[in-house]
Amino acid sequence: MVILGAGPAGLVLGNLLHANGIDCAILERAEQADLHARARAGYLAANTVRILERHGLADGLRRRGTQHAVCEFRTEGGRFRLDYGTLGRGERHTVYPQQELVADLLAHYLDAGGRISFGTKALAVLDAHGDRPSVTVQEPDGGSERWHARYVAGCDGRRGAARRSLPPGAVRRHHRDHGVSWLGLLAEAPPSLDAVGYAVHPRGFAGHMARTPEVTRYYLQWERGLPADAWSEERIWEELELRLGAAEHGALHRGRIVQRTVVDLESDVLEPLRHGSLLLAGDAAGLLAPSAAKGANLAVLEAELLARALVDDLAHGDPAGLDHYSAACLAHLWRAQEFSHWMVQLLHGTPAADGETLFHDGLRRSRLESLRTSRAHQDWFAENYVGV
Amino acid sequence: MVILGAGPAGLVLGNLLHANGIDCAILERAEQADLHARARAGYLAANTVRILERHGLADGLRRRGTQHAVCEFRTEGGRFRLDYGTLGRGERHTVYPQQELVADLLAHYLDAGGRISFGTKALAVLDAHGDRPSVTVQEPDGGSERWHARYVAGCDGRRGAARRSLPPGAVRRHHRDHGVSWLGLLAEAPPSLDAVGYAVHPRGFAGHMARTPEVTRYYLQWERGLPADAWSEERIWEELELRLGAAEHGALHRGRIVQRTVVDLESDVLEPLRHGSLLLAGDAAGLLAPSAAKGANLAVLEAELLARALVDDLAHGDPAGLDHYSAACLAHLWRAQEFSHWMVQLLHGTPAADGETLFHDGLRRSRLESLRTSRAHQDWFAENYVGV
Repeated sequence: MVILGAGPAGLVLGNLLHANGIDCAILERAEQADLHARARAGYLAANTVRILERHGLADGLRRRGTQHAVCEFRTEGGRFRLDYGTLGRGERHTVYPQQELVADLLAHYLDAGGRISFGTKALAVLDAHGDRPSVTVQEPDGGSERWHARYVAGCDGRRGAARRSLPPGAVRRHHRDHGVSWLGLLAEAPPSLDAVGYAVHPRGFAGHMARTPEVTRYYLQWERGLPADAWSEERIWEELELRLGAAEHGALHRGRIVQRTVVDLESDVLEPLRHGSLLLAGDAAGLLAPSAAKGANLAVLEAELLARALVDDLAHGDPAGLDHYSAACLAHLWRAQEFSHWMVQLLHGTPAADGETLFHDGLRRSRLESLRTSRAHQDWFAENYVGV
Repeated sequence: MVILGAGPAGLVLGNLLHANGIDCAILERAEQADLHARARAGYLAANTVRILERHGLADGLRRRGTQHAVCEFRTEGGRFRLDYGTLGRGERHTVYPQQELVADLLAHYLDAGGRISFGTKALAVLDAHGDRPSVTVQEPDGGSERWHARYVAGCDGRRGAARRSLPPGAVRRHHRDHGVSWLGLLAEAPPSLDAVGYAVHPRGFAGHMARTPEVTRYYLQWERGLPADAWSEERIWEELELRLGAAEHGALHRGRIVQRTVVDLESDVLEPLRHGSLLLAGDAAGLLAPSAAKGANLAVLEAELLARALVDDLAHGDPAGLDHYSAACLAHLWRAQEFSHWMVQLLHGTPAADGETLFHDGLRRSRLESLRTSRAHQDWFAENYVGV
């Protein structure tokens, strides 16, 4: 068994397969040090924590993660908070930076004797339609090699070898470009709110997500195509304060901006998630707009489903789980997509033809107002916001 | 006081003003006989019934209307029912054909001595910005006349004189063309389901709405631009049965199709709803796509708000209600628009760029599945489906 990619999907899958005696190897393009530096999402759903706990992978997040259950929406009309831990199913997030989760998963895998090759770039998956697929790779020394396996798990993201190796027509890609971009920022500053903050402002969306007591994540809706370094730190803080209504609601704790990334909000879903012996999970299966922070949660869920199916097949000769893998994942993936999409529409104006943007703005204001005032809407929101 | 239009908005307004001793006249373009023949929506929300009861206008619908509280969604995957009378706020619809409501409102108005001119076509509202507006009209005999009033209420629909008379820039129009059309049908046949039926089919939406024991309303998603008479009755029934899954769920009660109307699904909102002495209500204020059958309900709600504000001003010299009229209506109107829009997206594929339609179809399937399985989603749906 070869797993492409050592993100949450690949590492959860590797851990689960290894624990079940399935021979596997993870091939990761990055060096180990770079893997630890990837700052990504940090909000783990209750179900994600349950999965990780079930397999003994939750020690770190239990010790160092923090519980979170409030979000705050800010508009020019004022602000309101949703204590989502008391709404819907009453579930909370565990805030735990993704790179720490990845470090925990990797340590657990290595401690158990799992095999992983860093700096190993998968080039292509060959013969995926048959039962002897292989992966051609470029080794750290520049040489090339070929890995053979019964199955290949593509956990290598939206631009990885797994997706690139799908023959035309074998898998359909459903895609949407939401037409907006975010500048994702990591600031060396304590959180400014005791809640996830979503500012819906005429100048665009701004977001605040607590990460650790020393580091906070911010987002700014960003002009498509503008480089990440186009604005000074001063200008970024001023814009964040303007959109987040710092004048009315309190200044932000400023700090050095240590990372900037532009994200074009796009979503896609591949269907089916299996092509012969090649199975997709994580971002390779479907890309989620970051609006609902679902990516890592879906990855963990899919990895557990895939691990079970592979163990059934490889250890017990029962292929039913693998046959059902795609449909089972897609139900979760589309639910997350639908909610993410709802969030995208809630947080942004959608560029459209003449007059249409104004119509959308009216819908958005009404949607926010409904969320502020309707308990039924709040329960639905909480169920989807924390759920996967 | 001059009221343009004798639909639900104009007639409720006329009744309420007349009952409060405000001198008013309704100008209606159609002849009285034609007014009674206009078949429109027939689902009255609980709040609409409460308003009509409050003013003694609900005798007819209490006697002849029927209670309704179930809808059924049909897809290729099966069907599910939402007993929305037990969800959300537990409210029901009263099914009562709109032309009967209009007949009741008119009878009540005439019995009370209200003034109305049929066959009187308003051409333009003049001097709306000041406090002596007037309306030029074409009389039944072809002659023209001019009516003066302190206020003019534009209840004359999306193509009426009120909208046409707004000077450029005075009122903003937020508009969306949903890009889909419906063929609305009235069949001389008993209902085929004991529920409102929504079929979400790859060939397009089909709808079933009980009207009376002898007459049923059907809708077919229809190619934009195709004439209403393009298909034979046989072909229409076959298509309805195909989309509604008659083979699995039971044949339809066929009957003569006595009315066909093509509706291009469009929505708009005018903002503000007041321009000086000209006040807008009903379709003139905002056009709702028929997907959630909210039009007549909003009209009644707006007419009551407007009547109160006019009585405060004209009888008590207090203009505060009129100053607030637009904002108060718009909150309701946008909520109805947001829900209608959600329904449009639930019931139709949205034509878009390459691949986007498929993405939307995935979202739609997931939204339906969520509605089938999530009580929180069902409560939210019920609250919005019956609420105004």
